[in-house]
Amino acid sequence: MKGISLFAQKLSRGAGISELMKDLGSALESSQKSGIELSMMGGGNPAHIPELDTLFQRIWNEIGQSKNKLSEILGDYSAPQGSYHFRSILAESLSSRLGYPLTPQHIALTQGSQSAFFLLFNAFGGKFPDGSFKKILLPILPEYIGYADQGIYPNLFTSIPPIVEQTSTNRFRYQPNLSALESRLNQSDIGALCFSRPTNPSGNVISWSSVEKIYNLTQKNDIPLIIDNAYGYPFPNILFKEPEILWKPGMVHVLSLSKLGLPGLRTGIVIADPNIAEMIGEMSAILHLAGGNIGPAMAEKLLEDDLIYEISKNTIQPFYLKRSLEVQEIIDEAFSNRIEYQLHESMGALFLWLHLPNHKKKAKQIYEEAKSKGLFIIPGDWFFPGLEEKFSHNHECIRLTYSRNISEVRLGLKILTQILS
Amino acid sequence: MKGISLFAQKLSRGAGISELMKDLGSALESSQKSGIELSMMGGGNPAHIPELDTLFQRIWNEIGQSKNKLSEILGDYSAPQGSYHFRSILAESLSSRLGYPLTPQHIALTQGSQSAFFLLFNAFGGKFPDGSFKKILLPILPEYIGYADQGIYPNLFTSIPPIVEQTSTNRFRYQPNLSALESRLNQSDIGALCFSRPTNPSGNVISWSSVEKIYNLTQKNDIPLIIDNAYGYPFPNILFKEPEILWKPGMVHVLSLSKLGLPGLRTGIVIADPNIAEMIGEMSAILHLAGGNIGPAMAEKLLEDDLIYEISKNTIQPFYLKRSLEVQEIIDEAFSNRIEYQLHESMGALFLWLHLPNHKKKAKQIYEEAKSKGLFIIPGDWFFPGLEEKFSHNHECIRLTYSRNISEVRLGLKILTQILS
Repeated sequence: MKGISLFAQKLSRGAGISELMKDLGSALESSQKSGIELSMMGGGNPAHIPELDTLFQRIWNEIGQSKNKLSEILGDYSAPQGSYHFRSILAESLSSRLGYPLTPQHIALTQGSQSAFFLLFNAFGGKFPDGSFKKILLPILPEYIGYADQGIYPNLFTSIPPIVEQTSTNRFRYQPNLSALESRLNQSDIGALCFSRPTNPSGNVISWSSVEKIYNLTQKNDIPLIIDNAYGYPFPNILFKEPEILWKPGMVHVLSLSKLGLPGLRTGIVIADPNIAEMIGEMSAILHLAGGNIGPAMAEKLLEDDLIYEISKNTIQPFYLKRSLEVQEIIDEAFSNRIEYQLHESMGALFLWLHLPNHKKKAKQIYEEAKSKGLFIIPGDWFFPGLEEKFSHNHECIRLTYSRNISEVRLGLKILTQILS
Repeated sequence: MKGISLFAQKLSRGAGISELMKDLGSALESSQKSGIELSMMGGGNPAHIPELDTLFQRIWNEIGQSKNKLSEILGDYSAPQGSYHFRSILAESLSSRLGYPLTPQHIALTQGSQSAFFLLFNAFGGKFPDGSFKKILLPILPEYIGYADQGIYPNLFTSIPPIVEQTSTNRFRYQPNLSALESRLNQSDIGALCFSRPTNPSGNVISWSSVEKIYNLTQKNDIPLIIDNAYGYPFPNILFKEPEILWKPGMVHVLSLSKLGLPGLRTGIVIADPNIAEMIGEMSAILHLAGGNIGPAMAEKLLEDDLIYEISKNTIQPFYLKRSLEVQEIIDEAFSNRIEYQLHESMGALFLWLHLPNHKKKAKQIYEEAKSKGLFIIPGDWFFPGLEEKFSHNHECIRLTYSRNISEVRLGLKILTQILS
């Protein structure tokens, strides 16, 4: 092989997610050889919640009962934008929850939400017919690691550091810096805004009043506001505060079945103005013809009698909230009076975001030491795509996944405490 | 929305596949309103073969029996390159058939084979770090419509018209023009070669001796040879002549579960040198994190006792061969002594490729007239990506899908006969 294109180099040699994936692979192999017990607190795999496993199995077996229906699901390509029938059901179901009369034309399905972001970012950012280059603005850092390398062109992202607000002892919260945002938008090189809610990695939840202010700024600038609801409203609802949000024209909501417990189905859902949803469908046709049919088939069953909202509210949200509180308690007990630390308020998602101000070890060093002892975390450094000014948290934070079983989390936190002490 | 990027425009306003998809959508709608019976001879949906529907249902229900296994399949992200376990089984199974000791490192899974081509074409073609622009060379036209718009950059493809060989009355075959190929490669701007085997749209099957000659040329030029086996060897084996093919270093075979009857699972399989397979995994991580798990889970069951090869050989191949002969007979009967026509030898795939030399209507006009009468075909024009010289077949051919049920095909051919008479 003589070499690969700039595009392939950018995608396959991305510093963040690829490196971690590789690290993980080789670590798993060597741990199997050496017998070290691993604590995987790096990834974003949702927990296996027993009640949901039972429910998903029941639905799977129901689908398997009708040969004709199954034959359609397995054997027919869906439309690139997703099955019209399923989009109709979903639109009707979401309308009351999102406060807008959504139609099937407002919805496009993708192969997981990650692939929706690839399409959205490169449609609203990059090179434009008039010769301009537009960027995607992340209005509040830190932000999801998976966005960082998605640009076809380098330097697709620009972003704004947050305001840090101390909320109580050892707890803080990031707030969007709205005046910095407004003046950044005045440079007129922004194609779209995007934030995740709840925020991956910090567990932050941007308040509805802040969302509205950000939305008004995007409307003023005639650019879309993309909200990554992969962990959010109205399902899987891993939101401990301010759960609700509305859809309005100019917004692009991205939902997923993954954090509901179904990442193996690769189903992302884009809710957008019809011209944007249609564009996603057209781009999907070229890139991969059509999405998978199993996700929509299972989701259709979950939408019956609003089951999907019921499990989100009564099973998923309480499961993660309890787990988050439990793990915070372990950390507080282990760290208090020994380690200078700050946890971001845990308002949603699967992660705790640990800030270690003034610690002699930087995040990447902690990551390396942890890895050698069988604990996987992610150094905060990767969660600052497009950061163009100094912000100390960049090297002083780590992301901890708390969704694995509690004994594994305990083991991991023991290792982490040793490293930090 | 102020506008979209060049990339999004290229993908969403592609002349070929997007336009047809849209046409199809609006036609379906208006036919439902007007009650016209449709004959869908445009698409590439595989047939529903009753024995296979029964088999797939049995496998689905077997998977549903184990809660633990199902929980893993639905609830855990696989590695971006695909599950190591599944790749091991597949590599072992394919090794004897492809004549090479393949390992899991030779395999990468993708979300359907279409998405594999997007990654491969844009990795081996496009802008390179040294400032050069490399093209993907299609060594024998016509070629699959789905490639045409996949380039991130315009003019990604260049291609070579075939030699036309009359084989018998009303039958012809395309042959690769190897000397033109060799001199084209001397221009040194080619990043990879690609052809489909069997060929979509013509139903051609490039002979193994020609494959070897083409392979030797790619080796001499140190570029990969990509072979699209989506319909081919060793599964689903919709190959009526010269079914076998080998894998050799420098080749990239792309397989799929779709034409086996499972397009709803979106599972593509890349078999390549380990550095290429690894690159596909890394690019996949950025683009969509991971592939779906249902395809590999069902394929694993199909690989047990070599069932996948058995159904390919004894069920799928005979089904399509019989159907192809049946439909050719209908065409010969309807057209003989009335219409000047030539059919490409039907050596595989789901399509018949009809050449209408000297007909007063060009392919696009036939397409429009057929559409207004409820018959969907694809005009040949879309199957000539990168054609840089004159070739009359460009506007004189249509692609007919024969995989729909026979009464629908009969209806379609009746309409077509009227239009052409």
